[in-house]
Amino acid sequence: MASTQFRMEHDFLGDREVPLDAYYGVQTLRGSENFPITGLPIHPALIHAMGTVKKAAALANRDTGHLEPRIANAIAEAADDVISGKLDRWFIVDPIQGGAGTSINMNTNEVIANRALELLGEPKGRYEVVSPNSHVNMAQSTNDAFPTGVHIAALDVGKQLVAELRLLHEAFAAKEKEFEGIIKMGRTHLQDAVPIRLGQEFGAYRRVIGRDIERLRGVGNTLVEVNMGATAVGTGLNADPAYITAVVKYLAELSGWPIRTAENLVDATQNTDCYTEVSAALKVCMMNISKIANDLRLMASGPRCGLGELNLPARQPGSSIMPGKVNPVMAEVVNQVAFQVIGNDHTICLASEAGQFELNVMEPVLVFNLLQSTTIMTNAFRVFRTFCIEGLTPNTERMKAYVDNSVGVITAINPHVGYETAARIAREANVTGKPVRELILRDKVLTQEQLDAILDPFEMTSPGIAGSGKQKEHEDVWFKDQDETR
Amino acid sequence: MASTQFRMEHDFLGDREVPLDAYYGVQTLRGSENFPITGLPIHPALIHAMGTVKKAAALANRDTGHLEPRIANAIAEAADDVISGKLDRWFIVDPIQGGAGTSINMNTNEVIANRALELLGEPKGRYEVVSPNSHVNMAQSTNDAFPTGVHIAALDVGKQLVAELRLLHEAFAAKEKEFEGIIKMGRTHLQDAVPIRLGQEFGAYRRVIGRDIERLRGVGNTLVEVNMGATAVGTGLNADPAYITAVVKYLAELSGWPIRTAENLVDATQNTDCYTEVSAALKVCMMNISKIANDLRLMASGPRCGLGELNLPARQPGSSIMPGKVNPVMAEVVNQVAFQVIGNDHTICLASEAGQFELNVMEPVLVFNLLQSTTIMTNAFRVFRTFCIEGLTPNTERMKAYVDNSVGVITAINPHVGYETAARIAREANVTGKPVRELILRDKVLTQEQLDAILDPFEMTSPGIAGSGKQKEHEDVWFKDQDETR
Amino acid sequence: MASTQFRMEHDFLGDREVPLDAYYGVQTLRGSENFPITGLPIHPALIHAMGTVKKAAALANRDTGHLEPRIANAIAEAADDVISGKLDRWFIVDPIQGGAGTSINMNTNEVIANRALELLGEPKGRYEVVSPNSHVNMAQSTNDAFPTGVHIAALDVGKQLVAELRLLHEAFAAKEKEFEGIIKMGRTHLQDAVPIRLGQEFGAYRRVIGRDIERLRGVGNTLVEVNMGATAVGTGLNADPAYITAVVKYLAELSGWPIRTAENLVDATQNTDCYTEVSAALKVCMMNISKIANDLRLMASGPRCGLGELNLPARQPGSSIMPGKVNPVMAEVVNQVAFQVIGNDHTICLASEAGQFELNVMEPVLVFNLLQSTTIMTNAFRVFRTFCIEGLTPNTERMKAYVDNSVGVITAINPHVGYETAARIAREANVTGKPVRELILRDKVLTQEQLDAILDPFEMTSPGIAGSGKQKEHEDVWFKDQDETR
Amino acid sequence: MASTQFRMEHDFLGDREVPLDAYYGVQTLRGSENFPITGLPIHPALIHAMGTVKKAAALANRDTGHLEPRIANAIAEAADDVISGKLDRWFIVDPIQGGAGTSINMNTNEVIANRALELLGEPKGRYEVVSPNSHVNMAQSTNDAFPTGVHIAALDVGKQLVAELRLLHEAFAAKEKEFEGIIKMGRTHLQDAVPIRLGQEFGAYRRVIGRDIERLRGVGNTLVEVNMGATAVGTGLNADPAYITAVVKYLAELSGWPIRTAENLVDATQNTDCYTEVSAALKVCMMNISKIANDLRLMASGPRCGLGELNLPARQPGSSIMPGKVNPVMAEVVNQVAFQVIGNDHTICLASEAGQFELNVMEPVLVFNLLQSTTIMTNAFRVFRTFCIEGLTPNTERMKAYVDNSVGVITAINPHVGYETAARIAREANVTGKPVRELILRDKVLTQEQLDAILDPFEMTSPGIAGSGKQKEHEDVWFKDQDETR
Repeated sequence: MASTQFRMEHDFLGDREVPLDAYYGVQTLRGSENFPITGLPIHPALIHAMGTVKKAAALANRDTGHLEPRIANAIAEAADDVISGKLDRWFIVDPIQGGAGTSINMNTNEVIANRALELLGEPKGRYEVVSPNSHVNMAQSTNDAFPTGVHIAALDVGKQLVAELRLLHEAFAAKEKEFEGIIKMGRTHLQDAVPIRLGQEFGAYRRVIGRDIERLRGVGNTLVEVNMGATAVGTGLNADPAYITAVVKYLAELSGWPIRTAENLVDATQNTDCYTEVSAALKVCMMNISKIANDLRLMASGPRCGLGELNLPARQPGSSIMPGKVNPVMAEVVNQVAFQVIGNDHTICLASEAGQFELNVMEPVLVFNLLQSTTIMTNAFRVFRTFCIEGLTPNTERMKAYVDNSVGVITAINPHVGYETAARIAREANVTGKPVRELILRDKVLTQEQLDAILDPFEMTSPGIAGSGKQKEHEDVWFKDQDETR
Repeated sequence: MASTQFRMEHDFLGDREVPLDAYYGVQTLRGSENFPITGLPIHPALIHAMGTVKKAAALANRDTGHLEPRIANAIAEAADDVISGKLDRWFIVDPIQGGAGTSINMNTNEVIANRALELLGEPKGRYEVVSPNSHVNMAQSTNDAFPTGVHIAALDVGKQLVAELRLLHEAFAAKEKEFEGIIKMGRTHLQDAVPIRLGQEFGAYRRVIGRDIERLRGVGNTLVEVNMGATAVGTGLNADPAYITAVVKYLAELSGWPIRTAENLVDATQNTDCYTEVSAALKVCMMNISKIANDLRLMASGPRCGLGELNLPARQPGSSIMPGKVNPVMAEVVNQVAFQVIGNDHTICLASEAGQFELNVMEPVLVFNLLQSTTIMTNAFRVFRTFCIEGLTPNTERMKAYVDNSVGVITAINPHVGYETAARIAREANVTGKPVRELILRDKVLTQEQLDAILDPFEMTSPGIAGSGKQKEHEDVWFKDQDETR
Repeated sequence: MASTQFRMEHDFLGDREVPLDAYYGVQTLRGSENFPITGLPIHPALIHAMGTVKKAAALANRDTGHLEPRIANAIAEAADDVISGKLDRWFIVDPIQGGAGTSINMNTNEVIANRALELLGEPKGRYEVVSPNSHVNMAQSTNDAFPTGVHIAALDVGKQLVAELRLLHEAFAAKEKEFEGIIKMGRTHLQDAVPIRLGQEFGAYRRVIGRDIERLRGVGNTLVEVNMGATAVGTGLNADPAYITAVVKYLAELSGWPIRTAENLVDATQNTDCYTEVSAALKVCMMNISKIANDLRLMASGPRCGLGELNLPARQPGSSIMPGKVNPVMAEVVNQVAFQVIGNDHTICLASEAGQFELNVMEPVLVFNLLQSTTIMTNAFRVFRTFCIEGLTPNTERMKAYVDNSVGVITAINPHVGYETAARIAREANVTGKPVRELILRDKVLTQEQLDAILDPFEMTSPGIAGSGKQKEHEDVWFKDQDETR
Repeated sequence: MASTQFRMEHDFLGDREVPLDAYYGVQTLRGSENFPITGLPIHPALIHAMGTVKKAAALANRDTGHLEPRIANAIAEAADDVISGKLDRWFIVDPIQGGAGTSINMNTNEVIANRALELLGEPKGRYEVVSPNSHVNMAQSTNDAFPTGVHIAALDVGKQLVAELRLLHEAFAAKEKEFEGIIKMGRTHLQDAVPIRLGQEFGAYRRVIGRDIERLRGVGNTLVEVNMGATAVGTGLNADPAYITAVVKYLAELSGWPIRTAENLVDATQNTDCYTEVSAALKVCMMNISKIANDLRLMASGPRCGLGELNLPARQPGSSIMPGKVNPVMAEVVNQVAFQVIGNDHTICLASEAGQFELNVMEPVLVFNLLQSTTIMTNAFRVFRTFCIEGLTPNTERMKAYVDNSVGVITAINPHVGYETAARIAREANVTGKPVRELILRDKVLTQEQLDAILDPFEMTSPGIAGSGKQKEHEDVWFKDQDETR
């Protein structure tokens, strides 16, 4: 890099050389030197959303007469390049940074200013023509521009997550239907309980994912409120009310989200509960799906020395030392993503609680974790669905054999033969290991026909007393939740 | 206790002596011996709610012809004594217990059976007349009766919490109004920023509490769905559909909550996201209010060597070694309750993620923490409001002096004198320590009248350029959120 | 309570009526009114340790000539009553309290002062004779007396915990020996792997508990450093150096712990890492033992539709609806205690991070959680050992059948027959469900004798190639860790 | 990429095209497709450590006669290229992955096999000559090779962390000495307490960092125990004891760490407490240093409307809207790193608790967080020291003025004038705002000389009664902890 050429830039801390071709400037340089923490890039969704914020501000400042149209338009065009991802590589500050996001905001301001200068035929660094502070950041503070960008980014990545969740929901709904008639042993405390249908289990998985979708939809609605116009502390000092109205209109138009001004800008500038609420919804979702992954791993345990109820698709050799071993790797990665998201929620909460007075300066780490959580969930759900759920198959015979062999079916027989007889049979079954069905027939307690009626899969797995002629229509009453997200 | 007399009770593990006067029975005794963990009682709200569950079940079983009216009515009457709190002392099992709540459920069943026997003129323990299992627990499993009790208990304690939060919200609203005209220095990064009004700060506190109330209202709505009728695994085996309809109707009537059957009972029996969602809302609320407590402690720091902006009511001598010291103890206890609630949320999440198959057996520790969080928040908010918020007073002069003395007001002057002049004055102020106002008047940059217009508290603390004749009506646009919970 | 009589007490906030017979005084009363948070008592170990602190201080003040012997001795005698637990009921302040423990400290000072007055034949409240502040609290601040009491309490409860852990360690060691020769299938990813002996699994459980004991021993050693003599901020202002030396000597003598003065009292007064370190050790221990509980629950799953490898002792009926069901309740309660302790650690960390300047005022909630964690672990381990571990029995035949039936034994055969042949057999076994052993004999790949040599439990479960005549002595090399805590 | 050429590779799941020039193979490809989770690279320290593991294994297998020297040497040479970082870009699997690290292990095996083939003049993919499984992974399982690599990586990054902590410790020690004579107001509860010296505060910061160093040293010692030789489940099946001895010797030699075989390989393969213990130490360290950062931010608050006791070096412009504003960004980033590390610890604990039977399959996410925590701490401490601590300066006059003006100095005067007089003066000072010193001189309670003696900085900030002629030598007794890490 001996031949790197530099231009000189200046801020109130002094002069610094910046690489001649760099779109960033002196403040970005300082920020990148101050915070060499994770070495990771800023989330692209945040970079692009910051571009949207700057474009909206430039157009609003133009419309309200504060910014010369030629400059405003150049800024807007430069911002388009940020939005499109073309300039991602010039965002060099670390996602974990002091200063409440000032370095991200200034990185954006400088990149856009220099790109705008280029579009205007000016050399980079000629900030008297297009200034990162006076023009690109006009009527803004980091304290409103950055959170506004974060809201838009969170909405954008959240949209992808919800789309993946809906596909996952559909995949479980398809399995629910496919497994409708498969009877298996229900388990509580990992102990044999009473029969259930595999379709009912997948229906429960579907249902809880449906709630997760609703929950995310709910918290997403809070993100459309932004504090743009709050400037430094929420009082809106130096922000023309006409601009505040205009910028939000442009934000909505450019982002596609129904962005609106928060009702109380002081509140919206200092409090971060909208993020913790989103993170909580992500966490709850991951706990739910981690539980599902655990169930699948248990049901697929074996093949010979475990439960052996399900076959998960083989995705990769499971062992170098044990030929033929296949592991439930897609379920395992879901568990791990859950652990990461729960840990991230913890970080987010610590950051949120640390706000002081008019600002929460810990937002960068909060945002880093929030966007990471959303994205890794989206990624994990995609592969979980396509590589695990859609291809899993049941070992129907094995599940049926468990039910037939279990003592737990005695619960269904109980109302027909009386508690005393049922208990005696259960006792003998437990001691001798003989099937309950065999003992009942031997003692002529019930006929084969009666037994078949009682032990009918549907009879044993829907409300009421098995064998008493329940009507299958009842099921609709209790499981009437087949619409999309339930 | 040499004279304690016993009766003999029996379950399938064998015979055990139970104190003759005890309302509990053998299974409670086993449960209390198995789990001597915390030594704490079950939350009274949960005991009383379990009474409600049992009363509703008895009446529903009576109405659907499964339970003899004489027995059902005795159970209902005995349950009333549980609901009223009269029998609290006979609930002796530990809140942290194995068995997914079976011990709490059986403790309830046994206490009610024995009280019902007493009401019927029978000796305690005569379970062939009123059986804890066959009669009190009829058509129920721990797996539906216990969670249903928990939902009702959570609703009941949540109601008290919301009531306290509304009072706290009102207290902040009153202070917001009282402090409307008091100007002070806004701070970001703990560094002097631009002026703000103390009323605006308290308005932000009020607003965030309003959101907490809304959030709790939202999650409360999910608790009204119960899985009563699910029995062991959610399939409703052995629960008459007519009973399921009836019991929920009685639950609604007795509890006063619009209880309804969950749409998918298998889901509702195994998933605990309704609890984690409530806990998340509690946690978010506590983080918000902990931040407020931190701000109050900072503003009240001093009296001489701190910020000294607020006086918190003196509640107790603060030190044995330093005469006259008073500490912000009510704010400190709020912080500590926040830490407890956040830790409890962690426990709740761990328990929630540990569900397996048809049941989450970790519910007892989850419920213990959920009810504790709700109750300690209620208690803390009551004393925080009455002992701290309602009596706090501002040091108006000190706050004004900070503003007058600050360099930060230069931001408001900026648009009037140009960046160059403003920067020069700021520099001189920083170096010499002289007030900005004095330097401006000395250099005749602005007149006294102009300066007064710009540095008017309202001008500096509302959107737009200070000193440009803003209309106070604007404020209504941005701070129009005075209705109850905002 | 119409007849309650009162005495009047006074502090610098004014006069208050105190019940005539109460050993506590006005400051305790204020503290109890200010903090009605949990309604729980202070941990008895902390009350008793505060008695020890006050006795040591009185004797040290007497010896160094600051306190009149008659008063000092009365205080010491009164403190003995606190230490013995006789006065527990007069400690009425809440464990979660603002003020950094001032209320606990003053509750102690007042109870001891009034008890000393009683011993001296004086009426309660006659503080000019024995003053809670000037005499009982002489040369102390809450900021040194309270943490010192906490250290002693933590050592005392920690001792009980370590004693229980050692018994648990022994119980696992006994099972390790008992299960030495029982072969079973090893599992990774819940998938069949290669054989292992049940004794080896219990040996691993034993070993990790041994490490937990060592870890607790290590952190316990840090608790013997106290900041007694630091007074308000660690500078020791107003504390005679001779007194500081004397009080620590008495603390060691009275507590039985090798108490010593911290090297840096300013540090020791403001930093709480000794607690977080203890809590971390508790947490790590609980995670280890929770994993063991999970393994036991999995191995005991069934009885018919699960792994069915272990029988846990039946402790209570597991279900009211399913006759004969027994659940692994002792393992479940261990999991739940783990969740509580991990959540408590979270609270402790939040409190620890919140220290400011010369003090961490959040200590009360920190201490509440630390002592609770220690005590519930002690309680849980006792019942886990006696009600679960000591009585558990193996299903040896079932475990052997799994191994015989598994494909995983092919790994041991691999070196003898070559990878190609092994893979072919594994494939056929997987497809047809036939035992590997049967296929090998059918194809005459190995003789019955060779196969028996290879599939010998010891051969397959110790380092080296099975069937190649390993010497059992090798085992001593790898498993030579039978001494007490390993 | 139309021109990309491929080679065909095969595993038991079928054939796959691999880019012709790729050093990785089919299993890496599958792993990278299965887990597109974070998009981040494997930590370089882990890649390099895996190279060390593979080199050690190859040499040990060579020495014990299991691996042909020509192959072994080629593997060792190829491993050197991994160790040096030359092949980092070919490690393409995600750090969060299912399969307990199999994908990382196989990525290493394949890269080394292909590089070895290249060194032997063979084409990539010719695994019959050098096989990833049979040769590179010889006598290993992912379950021992991967954790062994992790231990070495954790030791390597931990070494850098400890080095940075020692420099930070030195920086605080230098400030402690520099600020030795500067008196300031001590604060408890953010309220004025009694005087302290700034050097004492920095001494407390130094001391706690010293403990952190010791704590890390302690936990580091546990990482040198590895489970190499455990193979699949810890029994060492198929691992020649001579190899186990040899490989550990090579690991020690190549890594520079005193690596040794764990005493119980079954334990060491399934339990992960060595990681949670390291993470706990990291977390405790970050909480301590976060508290320091908080103190610095408070002391540097202002410049005019805060405490204004310290000046932190200006690192970057703090605001685009407020000219001249400088924020404590280096302290803020330390807080945020603390939040990240605490959150990561949470993830690590969740992963650790999720182990089952013979393995903890959640290690990848655990390791990802552990290495990230260590590295971001190292990075943060470097910039915190060089950009914040080393250059910070005190506002000595302001601190002195606080002390002179405070009522808190009355505590030092107390023993000389009696409690009654002291209290009267304190009261008047509080009401009138007059300095205590002035009131004492006005009332002739003490002479100017007496007052000077008492209010001497050393007198007021060391043990004993101020003004009574303490000897400065006493200080050595209490603050004798100047050796390196204390």
